[in-house]
Amino acid sequence: MSEYLNTLLAHLGRGEPLVQATILAALGSTPRSAGSRMLLAPEADGVRILAGTVGGGLVEAQVMARATHIMDSGGRCAERCAGRCVEQFDLTGELAAGADMICGGRLCVFLERLGPGDLPLFRRLALALRQGQRCLRLTPLAHGPASLLLPKGGCFSGECFGGECFGAEIDGELALEAWRAGQGSAASMVLTARGQDYALEPWAAASPLCIFGAGHVSRPTAQLAAMLGFRVTVLDDRADFASAERFPQAQPRVLDSYADCFAGLPTGPETFVVIVTRGHLHDAEVLAQALRTSAGYIGMIGSRCKRDAVYARLRGQGFSEADLGRVRCPIGLAIGAETPEEIAVSISAELVA
Amino acid sequence: MSEYLNTLLAHLGRGEPLVQATILAALGSTPRSAGSRMLLAPEADGVRILAGTVGGGLVEAQVMARATHIMDSGGRCAERCAGRCVEQFDLTGELAAGADMICGGRLCVFLERLGPGDLPLFRRLALALRQGQRCLRLTPLAHGPASLLLPKGGCFSGECFGGECFGAEIDGELALEAWRAGQGSAASMVLTARGQDYALEPWAAASPLCIFGAGHVSRPTAQLAAMLGFRVTVLDDRADFASAERFPQAQPRVLDSYADCFAGLPTGPETFVVIVTRGHLHDAEVLAQALRTSAGYIGMIGSRCKRDAVYARLRGQGFSEADLGRVRCPIGLAIGAETPEEIAVSISAELVA
Repeated sequence: MSEYLNTLLAHLGRGEPLVQATILAALGSTPRSAGSRMLLAPEADGVRILAGTVGGGLVEAQVMARATHIMDSGGRCAERCAGRCVEQFDLTGELAAGADMICGGRLCVFLERLGPGDLPLFRRLALALRQGQRCLRLTPLAHGPASLLLPKGGCFSGECFGGECFGAEIDGELALEAWRAGQGSAASMVLTARGQDYALEPWAAASPLCIFGAGHVSRPTAQLAAMLGFRVTVLDDRADFASAERFPQAQPRVLDSYADCFAGLPTGPETFVVIVTRGHLHDAEVLAQALRTSAGYIGMIGSRCKRDAVYARLRGQGFSEADLGRVRCPIGLAIGAETPEEIAVSISAELVA
Repeated sequence: MSEYLNTLLAHLGRGEPLVQATILAALGSTPRSAGSRMLLAPEADGVRILAGTVGGGLVEAQVMARATHIMDSGGRCAERCAGRCVEQFDLTGELAAGADMICGGRLCVFLERLGPGDLPLFRRLALALRQGQRCLRLTPLAHGPASLLLPKGGCFSGECFGGECFGAEIDGELALEAWRAGQGSAASMVLTARGQDYALEPWAAASPLCIFGAGHVSRPTAQLAAMLGFRVTVLDDRADFASAERFPQAQPRVLDSYADCFAGLPTGPETFVVIVTRGHLHDAEVLAQALRTSAGYIGMIGSRCKRDAVYARLRGQGFSEADLGRVRCPIGLAIGAETPEEIAVSISAELVA
């Protein structure tokens, strides 16, 4: 999502208008779930896709045609349009025959023109995401400015209602309703409140992934995880391994040692931890610390045999079977991976699953 | 492997010497199997890794130290060394304690200095691999020139003994013994024949992967597959999709239509076919043709529901249940993939598995 948002900010920052298309509701069988987004820019004979997708195929082609109407080739709003519209696609009919979907389903796509006036809200959104916050963007489907709802005190567990509102002011009751509808959902939806329809879009920060060890498995794993949208930090006690040159898509960090190696790192349930240091003693040292965090995923490389030895060591340090049950070891889906790249694919598949 | 071989050819072509380290035999539990290779170049205070790996950790560090002895910092062979040696690593002992392995296993690594004199053989090898051939390189462990055994008539099924010999001439009996030992094995090994030890290395061409459809799923799939070492061809009937710009690591090919879409493509058991066109009618058209090839892997994107409709169509064309049983649909491991990148990871994991 960060690449998407960076593209959006760069274009708006240069004063270039855009159209954003968001799948708002997806009933039945659809290729992508609600929340998928696509960013379109005007060009001489229509629009082109800058980032994202709403599933490809004919639906995407029709969304692009509609976006061309919303924004004529000069980037100005066409006369017959207020800069926003909702398109319904009934995928049970003829459209489905030539598209990726064959068994029906309905798609509701919200198209909106974005201009420099939307920049402050998206900048605030980007800041919140960088801080690991989960936000809601609330936009009237017909017309009127959007609001950004930010969680109270930076909490992003989804348990806190209310918080700060950026952009158009909304009353507390609507904000509460939006938080209730949007909490815990990754999908965008239509929120109807007091006779008005809103597009309610949850925006979540990229999940943090901490990879301990910057060796030959770490490198393709970091590359794949970044491609999947993780916010990747790579840590090693060897400066020539944990380097920006080797990890252009990650935040490399050089440790004095693996003692206290989680200092300054995210440690909540949204955190993924991958342990692939150069030796099992370091792995055990990192694992003991990982088990003291609330990380939602902890994976460690190694054979079953090595695992048993490391676990025995940790049991001696007082860790319980329930603690050790949190660890995925051997890390990665069992696909017979051998090369570093294959191991990276097996780890990435497990991160997604 | 092609990146590895390209690096090797480029360095030798510039007259720069190298050391190649190859795992020749791996008994017990080792991190990488026999056949793993690493390429090292001299630098001021030792050697640096150019390509490949023999598993990282302390073993790799010791191999690098040994390579430094074989080739002093100026790139010339140190006096006490004939430019080749075999290193034994007993991973049951102390070495294992700090390394990636904890439960023992033995590693035998063959180190050899390569110079411009080795260029013709590796050039011939690269040509053979580009033609999809499987070859054997046979090198005396002590000293003497290497031989390249090429399959008869370009056959690479592993069933043909004999064939052409490039480099040092060897007698027919030794060649036959090498083919028998090396056929069907991806692992490098020690071949002992008439009192002499040889390193026997099978070199196999990258597996061809044909991706039909050049849309939003195809792109990250091609990128990942290239990273995994596949020789990727991407085909679409839309020139602006199947472009070198969108697929820098693949061979894009623009089709007039999906009729006769396998013309000029590999169709043997070593071939992987991924079907991700923009619509199920094209998918069905490609699948019918794929089932007439001997491709070892055929995967098609889509829901179970779409699959049933496509299969019904193909049954009507006379395809049997056994034919349809060859198809992986829905394509990819079931990891709940949603975004194009996640789907690409799930497909790649299935290609490896």
